[in-house]
Amino acid sequence: MEQNIRQRIDSLRAFMASHKLGAFIIPSSDPHQSEYVAPYWETRKWLSGFTGSAGTLVVTTHEAGLWTDSRYFLQAAEQLEGSGIDLYKDGLPETPDIASFLKSRMPMEAVGIDGSVFSASAALQLKKRLEGDAEVRCFDNPWEPLWSDRPPMPQSDIIIYPLQYAGTSCADKLAAIRQTMQQNGADRLLVSSLDEIAWTLNIRANDVHCNPVAVSYLIVEHEAAHFFVAPQRVGNELGAYLAENGVSVHPYDAVSAFLSNGDRKQVLQTELGKTNFALYLAACQGATVADRPSPVAPLKAVRNATEQAGIRNAMQRDGVALVRFLKWLEEAVPAGKETELSIDRKLHECRAAQPLYMGESFDTIAGYGAHGAIVHYEATPETNVPLRPEGFLLLDSGAQYLDGTTDITRTIALGPLTDEEKTDYTLILKGHIDLAMAVFPEGTRGAQLDVLARMPIWKRHMNFLHGTGHGVGHFLNVHEGPQSIRMNENPIPLQAGMVTSNEPGVYKAGSHGIRTENLVLTVPAGEGMFGRYLKFETLTLCPICTKGIVKELLTQEETDWLNNYHRIVCEKLSPSLNKDEQQWLAEACKAI
Amino acid sequence: MEQNIRQRIDSLRAFMASHKLGAFIIPSSDPHQSEYVAPYWETRKWLSGFTGSAGTLVVTTHEAGLWTDSRYFLQAAEQLEGSGIDLYKDGLPETPDIASFLKSRMPMEAVGIDGSVFSASAALQLKKRLEGDAEVRCFDNPWEPLWSDRPPMPQSDIIIYPLQYAGTSCADKLAAIRQTMQQNGADRLLVSSLDEIAWTLNIRANDVHCNPVAVSYLIVEHEAAHFFVAPQRVGNELGAYLAENGVSVHPYDAVSAFLSNGDRKQVLQTELGKTNFALYLAACQGATVADRPSPVAPLKAVRNATEQAGIRNAMQRDGVALVRFLKWLEEAVPAGKETELSIDRKLHECRAAQPLYMGESFDTIAGYGAHGAIVHYEATPETNVPLRPEGFLLLDSGAQYLDGTTDITRTIALGPLTDEEKTDYTLILKGHIDLAMAVFPEGTRGAQLDVLARMPIWKRHMNFLHGTGHGVGHFLNVHEGPQSIRMNENPIPLQAGMVTSNEPGVYKAGSHGIRTENLVLTVPAGEGMFGRYLKFETLTLCPICTKGIVKELLTQEETDWLNNYHRIVCEKLSPSLNKDEQQWLAEACKAI
Repeated sequence: MEQNIRQRIDSLRAFMASHKLGAFIIPSSDPHQSEYVAPYWETRKWLSGFTGSAGTLVVTTHEAGLWTDSRYFLQAAEQLEGSGIDLYKDGLPETPDIASFLKSRMPMEAVGIDGSVFSASAALQLKKRLEGDAEVRCFDNPWEPLWSDRPPMPQSDIIIYPLQYAGTSCADKLAAIRQTMQQNGADRLLVSSLDEIAWTLNIRANDVHCNPVAVSYLIVEHEAAHFFVAPQRVGNELGAYLAENGVSVHPYDAVSAFLSNGDRKQVLQTELGKTNFALYLAACQGATVADRPSPVAPLKAVRNATEQAGIRNAMQRDGVALVRFLKWLEEAVPAGKETELSIDRKLHECRAAQPLYMGESFDTIAGYGAHGAIVHYEATPETNVPLRPEGFLLLDSGAQYLDGTTDITRTIALGPLTDEEKTDYTLILKGHIDLAMAVFPEGTRGAQLDVLARMPIWKRHMNFLHGTGHGVGHFLNVHEGPQSIRMNENPIPLQAGMVTSNEPGVYKAGSHGIRTENLVLTVPAGEGMFGRYLKFETLTLCPICTKGIVKELLTQEETDWLNNYHRIVCEKLSPSLNKDEQQWLAEACKAI
Repeated sequence: MEQNIRQRIDSLRAFMASHKLGAFIIPSSDPHQSEYVAPYWETRKWLSGFTGSAGTLVVTTHEAGLWTDSRYFLQAAEQLEGSGIDLYKDGLPETPDIASFLKSRMPMEAVGIDGSVFSASAALQLKKRLEGDAEVRCFDNPWEPLWSDRPPMPQSDIIIYPLQYAGTSCADKLAAIRQTMQQNGADRLLVSSLDEIAWTLNIRANDVHCNPVAVSYLIVEHEAAHFFVAPQRVGNELGAYLAENGVSVHPYDAVSAFLSNGDRKQVLQTELGKTNFALYLAACQGATVADRPSPVAPLKAVRNATEQAGIRNAMQRDGVALVRFLKWLEEAVPAGKETELSIDRKLHECRAAQPLYMGESFDTIAGYGAHGAIVHYEATPETNVPLRPEGFLLLDSGAQYLDGTTDITRTIALGPLTDEEKTDYTLILKGHIDLAMAVFPEGTRGAQLDVLARMPIWKRHMNFLHGTGHGVGHFLNVHEGPQSIRMNENPIPLQAGMVTSNEPGVYKAGSHGIRTENLVLTVPAGEGMFGRYLKFETLTLCPICTKGIVKELLTQEETDWLNNYHRIVCEKLSPSLNKDEQQWLAEACKAI
């Protein structure tokens, strides 16, 4: 492996030499700035051997460095050993950022980037930082001659997402988008985000693991729309459907020429953080480019009535699958044969048996004991451990159903717990409930509510560094914007119809990890002083383990919330369960 | 009065005609962008007859308009009646902003402003908005020929603020400021804010009602400092003190020439939002001007140990005065002779009897019954009402002591209350306590904690539109930055040593208003996960009326906080009280 890595980096250095580049930067992204990318675009992984989801490789003539964040410090150190690549730990005060690193390695004539995977905003910032030191030279996907066994471009089947699940037609979505373009004075809109395209056109595919999207671009004009995708993927039915909606089909690779051949007097709107640099340069040749937040993301985030009904139905089936799994787990663990990996297979089986199941929405995190404290833990044959009837199992999983996407975390007591585990568990539950009970005026941002989930652990001088809540797509990506519930400011208010997670946690290295996650729908709470108020409807239907609860740490209001939640879970899931399962559920949902 | 107003506006129009101005804009500010201004700078009030603290007058050749916010809609409508000035209600969707209003009145050659009272940032923004439509012409204090009976410039005595109260010497403060200038690569710093100058030089005066500041400018260089103030105000002692600290004295009016005669290659740092436009233009002639947040505000906001001890002592004396007042009030109201105005006089007497008393920190808000719902109510002989032994009295007041500034609101049950009043009172207390009990990691911003004070009323669909907390100066202005606790994002974190108010409220027009306010000091709470944690120490020492409390609405933790607070109040104030007062206090502080 290390030998391969050295050869690959040498071949990149030969390419760099032939183009007089002093350095080359390789980020983790794809041309669509996706959070998760298809293997075809895993260039950074291929070049460096580091398999984490986030990291940037920088190769100079004599050095190579990988920048990654604290989640991956251990893993990257192991995977880079012997590769000749140095680890740069992002976020530590002594770690230079990449531009500063490059400035300290001057003189060099130019720095190379693959403009097709660098976002325009990142590339423009880099150019600014290196101004006067080195030119930034943009190459468009230069890997083909170097990467002989490169995986193929994804080409999964594209389906038309039925109106009975989408609720709003493609025509109506295009009309809503065109209205925002009108307000912005834009003649054209370039959409690169794969989930935004899937939502707009009401299509789904399977190009990225767990993300039901199709690799493509979309350009919306006032009188036409252009879908750029590998032509062989558009059959008769899809072609006719797109034509009906005024959407013409072009080859995926034709987007650049299409943009550069436009009219310079026309305004093309796009979000530079979501648009790759190569396309941005092409667009600048054929239009006046206006950097504006995508109008699709906020439209997509607000669920229509059909989508709301869909996710409620999906949650009911997901809950039934989870109850069957949890009942099985309770019986299986004492028998002593289960492991982190084996229960993941069982969980998959339970979900796959449900109608409309389409796959998982992300790779399950099943962390037993100390593994629960590794926030992005994914069990492998090497790390896999047997489950014993004691301590906590942290289980974060989700599914794609045709009528909605789920994402749930339960921390399950497999047997006796320490007092510290019980206290931590109860404080996290307390925060989860306090956020779930929030009522707030229209216009409230997630960063204002975030503290509700954290205050119980802050009072014990504990915290968690991930967000409290992320948006969740509708049979789409499990992470979506624009809203969030985090410590950081995000100016987007929570709106009625948005689906967001509520997932406080606490992680004690070497000991245990706890997280309790439900999805919540923002819903109207009624009129009041100075306007309308909103609240959360908890969508997820699955018992919250009561074995770890220290009742005295909950207020009566919090206890009432939990008992009421369990009453609803029981009521909604029981009709789909057999007698034994009903009995198990009733016990799990017993009032505390 | 209306006749005078018309004559004054006519004289301004004559001035405008002679300078070919199509409009003139008159804001409420002074050359130092003070929140409260000396009568000398009450030009907008003199020209319009409107006495509110916030408002901007725009005069065109044939129209005049006053823009003000919702606090003043009623008052402005009354005061502008018959003046020929139209009221523009800021914040309503149908109200144009001033630039839009002016654009709709084009063509005009130029718009005039008094550059000495317009902030540089506001003036630059106006110029940008009117670009291509009209020139913005800057006049420097053009009122002398028009305003014959203009009040004189303030010239109160300037005192040296003793080190025993300031805790940090002027020399050390200048050194700290120079260190930030070094980091910013600045050769000079221009400070216009009066409280920043008073803090830096350790001086106090009485130029602005309730604000112990001296009208002046300060320029800090690495090897020298320059204080611009009316020369007759600097006696031998002050002169010698300033000289010792390397501060030379210049006439107040000399600042502009001093700035314009500088070296264009030198960098002058100033905050454009706190610097007037006329000075900015002068500075641009004599330096490269860098717009940077003032380094003084954050230094000033973090109290040293002496200041912390001082404010604790001041709070003890303020609490003693308040207890004497509250005991008197309880006995006086049933006798039937007291009014909103008479109790303000009594409160003043109680405070004035305390050592180190220097005056009030703002005009008392004493609102009985429905008057409590008028957020910025100030009783006048016309509005004054007698206090009856029923309902709520909202009393917001504060004092300047040599060792600290106080600001406290109590809502006092004068007799029987309605259930609604009791519920509202308890919910506001609940929010106050929840914020007071907060613990949070270093780096937390006020906007993250604000929700703690609001959630109890949000759950009943109520809200208040003012901030939950503002910074408070140290024997300085009762409102200071840079921190705040508000719904709006403010990137400044709460730091150990900052003094901030905690003042949720609720206001029901025509019925009652409730606010409960203490000042809190941010203090270390200890080390924890990922770093250090902070909490609030409540500084204010005065019983919180328990008569309106619905105990079932409080959690045990909240009840415990209140009982503990009252135990501390009793313990700290009793030694300074006589037997009768001690007995009254013990009763007021009885555990609920």
